[in-house]
Amino acid sequence: MGLLRDAGVVYKPVEQIDLGPCSDESYFRADKAPRMVGFLLKIFAWFLESRIIGALLLYIVKKNNQVHKLVTNATLVEPPMFVPLHPITELNQQEVKQIDSDASPPERVQEAIKCIPVTSEKLLDDLKLSCFRRWTIADYSRAYSTGAITPLRVAEHFIDAVRESCSPPLPMQARESTLRYERGIPISALDGVPIAIKDEIDCSPYPTTGGTKWLQKFRPCTGDACCVMRLRSCGAILVGKTNMHELGAGVSGINPHYGPIRNPYDPNKIAGGSSSGSAAVVSSGLCPIALGVDSGGSVRMPASLCGVVGFKPTFGCIPHSGVIPLNWTVGTVGILAATLEDAFIVYAAISGELPSHKSTTLPPKVHFPLLNSTNPISNIRFAKYGEWFNDCSDEIRICCSNALNLLCEHYKWKTVGVTIPDIESMLLAHYVTISSECSTSLSSHMEKLDFAEIGWDVRVALRICGAFNGKEYIKAQKMRYRQMQIHNNIFTMADVIVAPTTGRTAYSIIDDALKTGEVDCINGAALIRYQIAPNFLGLPAVTVPVGYDIAVVFRFVFHFLAST
Amino acid sequence: MGLLRDAGVVYKPVEQIDLGPCSDESYFRADKAPRMVGFLLKIFAWFLESRIIGALLLYIVKKNNQVHKLVTNATLVEPPMFVPLHPITELNQQEVKQIDSDASPPERVQEAIKCIPVTSEKLLDDLKLSCFRRWTIADYSRAYSTGAITPLRVAEHFIDAVRESCSPPLPMQARESTLRYERGIPISALDGVPIAIKDEIDCSPYPTTGGTKWLQKFRPCTGDACCVMRLRSCGAILVGKTNMHELGAGVSGINPHYGPIRNPYDPNKIAGGSSSGSAAVVSSGLCPIALGVDSGGSVRMPASLCGVVGFKPTFGCIPHSGVIPLNWTVGTVGILAATLEDAFIVYAAISGELPSHKSTTLPPKVHFPLLNSTNPISNIRFAKYGEWFNDCSDEIRICCSNALNLLCEHYKWKTVGVTIPDIESMLLAHYVTISSECSTSLSSHMEKLDFAEIGWDVRVALRICGAFNGKEYIKAQKMRYRQMQIHNNIFTMADVIVAPTTGRTAYSIIDDALKTGEVDCINGAALIRYQIAPNFLGLPAVTVPVGYDIAVVFRFVFHFLAST
Repeated sequence: MGLLRDAGVVYKPVEQIDLGPCSDESYFRADKAPRMVGFLLKIFAWFLESRIIGALLLYIVKKNNQVHKLVTNATLVEPPMFVPLHPITELNQQEVKQIDSDASPPERVQEAIKCIPVTSEKLLDDLKLSCFRRWTIADYSRAYSTGAITPLRVAEHFIDAVRESCSPPLPMQARESTLRYERGIPISALDGVPIAIKDEIDCSPYPTTGGTKWLQKFRPCTGDACCVMRLRSCGAILVGKTNMHELGAGVSGINPHYGPIRNPYDPNKIAGGSSSGSAAVVSSGLCPIALGVDSGGSVRMPASLCGVVGFKPTFGCIPHSGVIPLNWTVGTVGILAATLEDAFIVYAAISGELPSHKSTTLPPKVHFPLLNSTNPISNIRFAKYGEWFNDCSDEIRICCSNALNLLCEHYKWKTVGVTIPDIESMLLAHYVTISSECSTSLSSHMEKLDFAEIGWDVRVALRICGAFNGKEYIKAQKMRYRQMQIHNNIFTMADVIVAPTTGRTAYSIIDDALKTGEVDCINGAALIRYQIAPNFLGLPAVTVPVGYDIAVVFRFVFHFLAST
Repeated sequence: MGLLRDAGVVYKPVEQIDLGPCSDESYFRADKAPRMVGFLLKIFAWFLESRIIGALLLYIVKKNNQVHKLVTNATLVEPPMFVPLHPITELNQQEVKQIDSDASPPERVQEAIKCIPVTSEKLLDDLKLSCFRRWTIADYSRAYSTGAITPLRVAEHFIDAVRESCSPPLPMQARESTLRYERGIPISALDGVPIAIKDEIDCSPYPTTGGTKWLQKFRPCTGDACCVMRLRSCGAILVGKTNMHELGAGVSGINPHYGPIRNPYDPNKIAGGSSSGSAAVVSSGLCPIALGVDSGGSVRMPASLCGVVGFKPTFGCIPHSGVIPLNWTVGTVGILAATLEDAFIVYAAISGELPSHKSTTLPPKVHFPLLNSTNPISNIRFAKYGEWFNDCSDEIRICCSNALNLLCEHYKWKTVGVTIPDIESMLLAHYVTISSECSTSLSSHMEKLDFAEIGWDVRVALRICGAFNGKEYIKAQKMRYRQMQIHNNIFTMADVIVAPTTGRTAYSIIDDALKTGEVDCINGAALIRYQIAPNFLGLPAVTVPVGYDIAVVFRFVFHFLAST
């Protein structure tokens, strides 16, 4: 002890914190290291992987990133919270519809359809959200039913569009769906709708690579993940797997093994990550829906950068079986869609616990919000933390503020000024958590692995992942409990926390990163700034388009407390 | 990586394990280091606390204790389980009584009294369990009600008996209780009953030392713990705090600061720990009840060695508020009593969640087993793992086997042969867990602390406590999930797992340990061998007297699955 020790922060007990807009809790954002690519990145990875110098380097990295001060040596009275489960809450029965929890996925889809407005086209036009028209689930369903097009023709178009990854089972699924429509017996509104799956989720007959060249050797895909199985049971056409940031260990979507994922609005820009490919296929209009996995904003960031809706449900609401277990307490399957209604329909199909798991925190009934209520939900209060909200580029700030004002004017909703303390500490605590869990998850494979098969940026990430001790992990869980209390208190003052989704829009893919990947902490931090509370605290969050910069869309993120 | 790496065990998936008596899973017990006291212990502590040599020594300690092989580098498919909560289970309504969960502690005590046989004296004499007669709660209650003795006289006797720690508030509590009996309005059967509290649990007006000379400086006691408050509300006389192993970090009860806790049956022998004083006061007949805390057998071991009943309830059933948070996932308040009935009455008084905590795993009603049913509970099946059961001294084995046979003959209950795989691995996983949590809990104090104020054995323990990384902690939680599945499977074959409480009886206190404490892994392992599953998996467990060796009693431990 002694010598090298950094003094730790003493966190205030929650009951002593003023969460109001005039609180003396200050907004703090740590400085980040500059971008690293190519040879420099390789050297850094080599040093990190050496035993003695590596240990010293890790110490410096942790110290410079304030881990010692904000986590390791921090003092806080709260007990740890390891899993962010929420107790069952009573819901206002006027605003939700209860569905029997053992309803089948197709039954749920049809119930969900009944909850949304008959046509959302007018609304879309009103809000001028898209420059071109993406087909929604309702569009597909209507066109199939009227015979305007068949699932088989859609599949053929799709195959043409992605010729290079043409997948054999696709036409068969489409043929079967076409037959069902011909016979007038489609399974649900999802029948024949093309859906793409992030390569972190099992989907037969494809291997699940997790964006690597090696994981499928150790963890062969033996069947559909639960969420995929449910989509299949609704008649959806599973069109294939989408590329992703290797192991989800970055936010750029620059994958050195399968190529960088490019933004459909500008192929020289990143799509964001790690569910990059899922965002890109929806954004480009190839499919109305794709599944991603969101452990630290990995669905919402690329959705935002690619101009589509990204929905991260409440922790535990979608079974995680069949998803690569890169962590156990922060990640969940999420949905990328062109519209909120479509995200909701797919959520209806894939949510709900497994029959074999008796959960004690999920509501015994499934609740669907009534989106088609003649009266829109009244008295919504948005919590806005000014300093945090404004910590983004000027254009994002202006556009998001305008959108918020418009909502409040139109629906007579209110904005409440709040202060969310220790956001930077929460980011670190989440990082300690996801890193330790990822390192544990992969540890057995790491022994057998040739490190040359891993991208250089991920080698650096993996080495840092394993750098935390048991005390740091548990302290992070104490911080989780503390932030849970803080957020619960904020949710007594407001219904939704509102902020931009990212601090900046999509940045350029520079060629020097294509082979080694890049470690870009400054841009990474700007993307991740608003992402973490929903992951760390298990809260639902959604990002919706509110505007564009020169080429790329940025978004709001809404956090809902109730499990919708 | 490489060079020094120990290959890890690959654990079989639970569904592939044969848990029957002829399983090929082998029983394995690791060798332990020899005893260390005095100067050798000091040297070892000094080296451990140095930065470089310390790190090397810790590596060797972990390696020699098979941590690398059985935990760090182990491969297992299960997800982690961080908190051993059990889902609500349906209980057989014929064998339990439902009590409204918002009944007050005195109301619960009276309901509990109705569930037990009117007099247990005959039974006690039948089983020849005690060589002298300890007063039970019923004895006190009856004597107070008939006026044979008053709470005040009992308190005076008590003060005489423990003259050196005479406590001012005691006579006042006793006077008030005496008045209530005089007026014929005692609060409950616990009114006037003397109860002692382990010095890990807050009890006004005493400081909570945790067996240290320093903890009370950093964590002043500001009121009663919830369990103590409930006892007080039942009229119990809180007679004082009991000595314990420093920080609960050992099982001998040799405390260098307040003196070793001696066994009432033979003052030259240990009382066991860490709730040593609580076991000793009940064993000596000073009070019928004492509270302890059981995080790794700390209630059951001293109960066993001192010849009394020790009950560790289901995790989460007794509020932990006001208990030094030395860990968060393995410990619970436990009860030491002369009889099972008394442990049950006190459990009725102190169990039940806090009104402010909406638990989702505790049953909505409190369930009391009907101990006075005319038909004893039928068809109890005991699971016995032969090799484990027999891994104890000859006399313990013979005595425990005889007791088990007697029970089966008398009640027509059955014994089922089972195999519990990887018990040694579970011990290590529990150790990694409790160590990391303890290290986190104390970390803020450690900065400000003069190490000279800590006993030498505890200095060694604390240093080892901090030696585990995040991956090891999480792997231990994966092992927790795995063992939970294994035990759940065993509980489909049997109702209760039965084993001796300890592998040996109380050993001698050797003078060389009095000043420095001792590190005695061989004897420690023999004491702890049967303790860990209830802590690690949150299961209830009870130890009851079944016989004596030359001077000291040893015990059975029963594990019940249902939350009683």
